[in-house]
Amino acid sequence: MSASKPSPAELPTASLIIIGNEILSGKTQDANLQFLAEELGKLGVQLTEARVIADVEQTIITTVNELREKYTYVFTTGGIGPTHDDITALSVARAFGRELVLDQTAVEGMTRGNIELNEARLKMAHVPEGATLIQNPRSFAPGFKIENVYVLAGIPSVARAMFGTLLDELNAGVAIHSANVDVYLKEGDIAKPLETIALEFADLDVGSYPFSRDGRFGANLVVRGADAERVAAAMDSIVSTMIDAAGAENVGEPS
Amino acid sequence: MSASKPSPAELPTASLIIIGNEILSGKTQDANLQFLAEELGKLGVQLTEARVIADVEQTIITTVNELREKYTYVFTTGGIGPTHDDITALSVARAFGRELVLDQTAVEGMTRGNIELNEARLKMAHVPEGATLIQNPRSFAPGFKIENVYVLAGIPSVARAMFGTLLDELNAGVAIHSANVDVYLKEGDIAKPLETIALEFADLDVGSYPFSRDGRFGANLVVRGADAERVAAAMDSIVSTMIDAAGAENVGEPS
Repeated sequence: MSASKPSPAELPTASLIIIGNEILSGKTQDANLQFLAEELGKLGVQLTEARVIADVEQTIITTVNELREKYTYVFTTGGIGPTHDDITALSVARAFGRELVLDQTAVEGMTRGNIELNEARLKMAHVPEGATLIQNPRSFAPGFKIENVYVLAGIPSVARAMFGTLLDELNAGVAIHSANVDVYLKEGDIAKPLETIALEFADLDVGSYPFSRDGRFGANLVVRGADAERVAAAMDSIVSTMIDAAGAENVGEPS
Repeated sequence: MSASKPSPAELPTASLIIIGNEILSGKTQDANLQFLAEELGKLGVQLTEARVIADVEQTIITTVNELREKYTYVFTTGGIGPTHDDITALSVARAFGRELVLDQTAVEGMTRGNIELNEARLKMAHVPEGATLIQNPRSFAPGFKIENVYVLAGIPSVARAMFGTLLDELNAGVAIHSANVDVYLKEGDIAKPLETIALEFADLDVGSYPFSRDGRFGANLVVRGADAERVAAAMDSIVSTMIDAAGAENVGEPS
């Protein structure tokens, strides 16, 4: 299996490139990965890999070129503002061997922002030749799409607004269904029966995610897959097995 | 420049591999990247790249082997528990072409946990041949180190406890200094003077991170580098330039 292994229902795959020194220094907590992962899942697109990389041109070029070959979609966040360290648009253009050109539609959109279109702001109206604009309902400077690469802003509220304009385009028409349940049992005590269930439902992803909560260890058991009935059957099996093993008081309500 | 570009003071570099389907599905918000980034920064180690990958053996092998060649240190989080989907230890062993072997010291440590050492738990006492254990002061099952790869737990409290045992070993003796200031100005209005300062202090990282807060746009301006005096001088220059441009009421207190 490879990173681009087909998901259970041959769903389209996606990767996310988070571009930003501020995430790598720990100064900022990323808030785009989780949002995009959830939203892509609802559309039937499987987020398969994410990378956090520095604002370094060659790194951006290499990463974009590697991932666009590997996944159905590549999303990037960050680095499309007006300052000297915003080099995403130029780097993506170079990844595709294209020129960065001033887009008149982007300029017109930005004039609605009631701000002076100085040289720094005009930088945000430059996109790789042949790219399609991604509308920015929130702050006017657009993102863009070039082939299968979608370049979004880093500010979470702006990234979300941009992503919201892409829903129809990305919808794969197949939802990923999931169910999960919290079990207040140590993973070491449930690993064996859980493995049996995972083997029985090999067409689904069955995962166990341990947690520590109020001083107690437990695990969140998750089933994911394209077939809602199979997901429900696997969850029923997990719940009854865990109750048999440990009593109903240690098993939460599945959701 | 490449992804492994030397940081300003030729600091050691690190990468982080977050192993876990739960992060890629959006079910769980990662909490290890920011913590490790900050702590590594304090030790003088520059986190240069992070990847979030699925629990897929070949993906783990390929990623570990690529990054351990590229960076001084590689950290992994996740996938070292007792359940069927915990395949990090086996995959890392295979990345190094080594066998997974039962470590008697790990077994002894785990007996202190007052839990039944069943087959699933004994899996957590297996490490690649020749690996060194990383103590787990919190829940007994250890992590391990093999060459420059440090394998930590995914649960944040456990990952932190494990990392805490490595501080002396990782300390590069050179801290990364940073200073930052919030400016309530649109990035497009400060891009030009900020670029001038960034060019003057080319030995430092000068970054601008836009934010939207209470309906106002602004930017957090950050300076980072190994030379504390240069960092302070650059921040002084930023503050006075921004006050000149926009008035003191739009410029916060640097910290």
